Amino acid sequence: MTIPESQPVPSTATSEPLRILITGSAGFVGSHLVERFLNEGHTVIGVDNYISGQVSNTDLFRDHPRFTFIEADVSHGIPYEGEKLDWVMHFASPASPPHYQQFPVETLMVGAQGTQNGLELAHAHGAGFFLASTSEVYGDPHVHPQPETYWGNVNPIGVRSCYDEAKRYAEAITMAYHRSRGVNTRIIRIFNTYGPRMRPDDGRVITNFVHQALRGEPLTVYGDGSQTRSFQYIDDLIEGISRLVMVNYHEPVNLGNPDEFTMLELVKIIDDEVAHTSIRFLDLPKDDPKVRNPDLNLKLSLIGHTDFKSLREGISFTIRNMSKRA
Amino acid sequence: MTIPESQPVPSTATSEPLRILITGSAGFVGSHLVERFLNEGHTVIGVDNYISGQVSNTDLFRDHPRFTFIEADVSHGIPYEGEKLDWVMHFASPASPPHYQQFPVETLMVGAQGTQNGLELAHAHGAGFFLASTSEVYGDPHVHPQPETYWGNVNPIGVRSCYDEAKRYAEAITMAYHRSRGVNTRIIRIFNTYGPRMRPDDGRVITNFVHQALRGEPLTVYGDGSQTRSFQYIDDLIEGISRLVMVNYHEPVNLGNPDEFTMLELVKIIDDEVAHTSIRFLDLPKDDPKVRNPDLNLKLSLIGHTDFKSLREGISFTIRNMSKRA
Repeated sequence: MTIPESQPVPSTATSEPLRILITGSAGFVGSHLVERFLNEGHTVIGVDNYISGQVSNTDLFRDHPRFTFIEADVSHGIPYEGEKLDWVMHFASPASPPHYQQFPVETLMVGAQGTQNGLELAHAHGAGFFLASTSEVYGDPHVHPQPETYWGNVNPIGVRSCYDEAKRYAEAITMAYHRSRGVNTRIIRIFNTYGPRMRPDDGRVITNFVHQALRGEPLTVYGDGSQTRSFQYIDDLIEGISRLVMVNYHEPVNLGNPDEFTMLELVKIIDDEVAHTSIRFLDLPKDDPKVRNPDLNLKLSLIGHTDFKSLREGISFTIRNMSKRA
Repeated sequence: MTIPESQPVPSTATSEPLRILITGSAGFVGSHLVERFLNEGHTVIGVDNYISGQVSNTDLFRDHPRFTFIEADVSHGIPYEGEKLDWVMHFASPASPPHYQQFPVETLMVGAQGTQNGLELAHAHGAGFFLASTSEVYGDPHVHPQPETYWGNVNPIGVRSCYDEAKRYAEAITMAYHRSRGVNTRIIRIFNTYGPRMRPDDGRVITNFVHQALRGEPLTVYGDGSQTRSFQYIDDLIEGISRLVMVNYHEPVNLGNPDEFTMLELVKIIDDEVAHTSIRFLDLPKDDPKVRNPDLNLKLSLIGHTDFKSLREGISFTIRNMSKRA
């Protein structure tokens, strides 16, 4: 299935009003989803336990007439007793290495019990279930860029496995509920994403660099800085999610930005935006992937062309947002 | 650490009496473990919900003074309230493709919640935790034979993923409890194992061939029969487990037989034992691994040399056992 560019692409923006429960609503991606869906006229129930989400993200919507918030750990159940849901979207999880390594058991649980609780809720409501998976399921990839058919190269017992294996498990149980219990499911694999509302202590490279640059500290580069990443601006991810909700496709779909940058190229962009002093080189962390880049052919065939914000423009937006908050 | 052959190797056979809880005690491997530990003077608490275990395996020990049985689904909790445990050994799971594909969600749960319940019980008792993992974590391997350092090639969304990903998750959460909560853990990766008390409807190749041969039916060979497997006799596995309990090593250890046979070579051995009529060739099942063979160097360095029963001898034992039961 390929959608010609001339054809208007369905998305939640044009759908009838939906009732959507989002786990991890106080997180970085979750909060942007809440904002988008509220702006489109949908009703949103946010759920978060603030293990890595931020109260300030809930505060943004607390007074909105179509927003409800439930403080709960979805690994222990989702205490929703309201009207019939159309979608359960599972975005709850620590997602940055410092956070998930601080909470390895909780991260494993939100991938297993959390995902299953979401699937059971969706099943009970006859709702769709939308899983936020990750490019981390590809691990340190031997295939580059990574198509969805690549099975990955993940260390099952390494220090990152609490996140990587939790997400692989989450995909497996989502497919099991789809195949054996008929739940209408979606799975996306999110590649590096950045933008406003990332936690200042997120620990990922763009947040680190921007904060270090704003503080006049040296930028910390791991290894020799030749490892590459692709960086997706948050709005581009949200657009992809909004369209994929409306496409009846059940296997994983990559969502990311195909432009690849080395860490040193990223340093240059930050350098052009904010004066900085120097680079400090540190050892590569354990099992850190050396390359990561999405193959987006499946996405293109399912939801058509979407615009990407350039890294330079996205960084500029993010820096302005972070300066305001600092 | 290498153990000279002359040195007696510690095992549960020479340890002081232990109190051991075994999940999956009514299963094939579980029931042989129960037998071994009871014969060595230990106290055993068996737990099973009979989703794939057999009541006849519990009946073997029901009257033993040092055996207690709890019928329970360990994914929902392990209702043990007795004296302090020395070991929790988690062997519960459907393990053959027809069984786990019939119960995909239950298989995922016993890998996640079941493993975690075992880890919590071990933690509460200050006991060791012993995880039965599997060579299936290697998937369809690109490295052959497979050392424990190989990260595997598993399809996270395939029809086998309910088992493979559940076991990878089980390893990840076992390591998380070891690292972050100090539980004394063991992980073994069990390669194809056969012997008395396999379920007649187990669906794996040796059981299938023996039953088909005994009934005079054609032996079903998938693909062209050139795919290889290594087959471990159950007693050899139990010996390895008994020794590894006593070795303070926390990362996964392969337990299997290094001798590799094609399916057609296996047919020949069955043919020599039981007259059969013919072979029926069928298509290879989805994601079926083409080769699988353990690298046993780590095992050798940890527990020293152990004898292997030859495939011919093991098959002969198994056929005699199955004929008795038929």
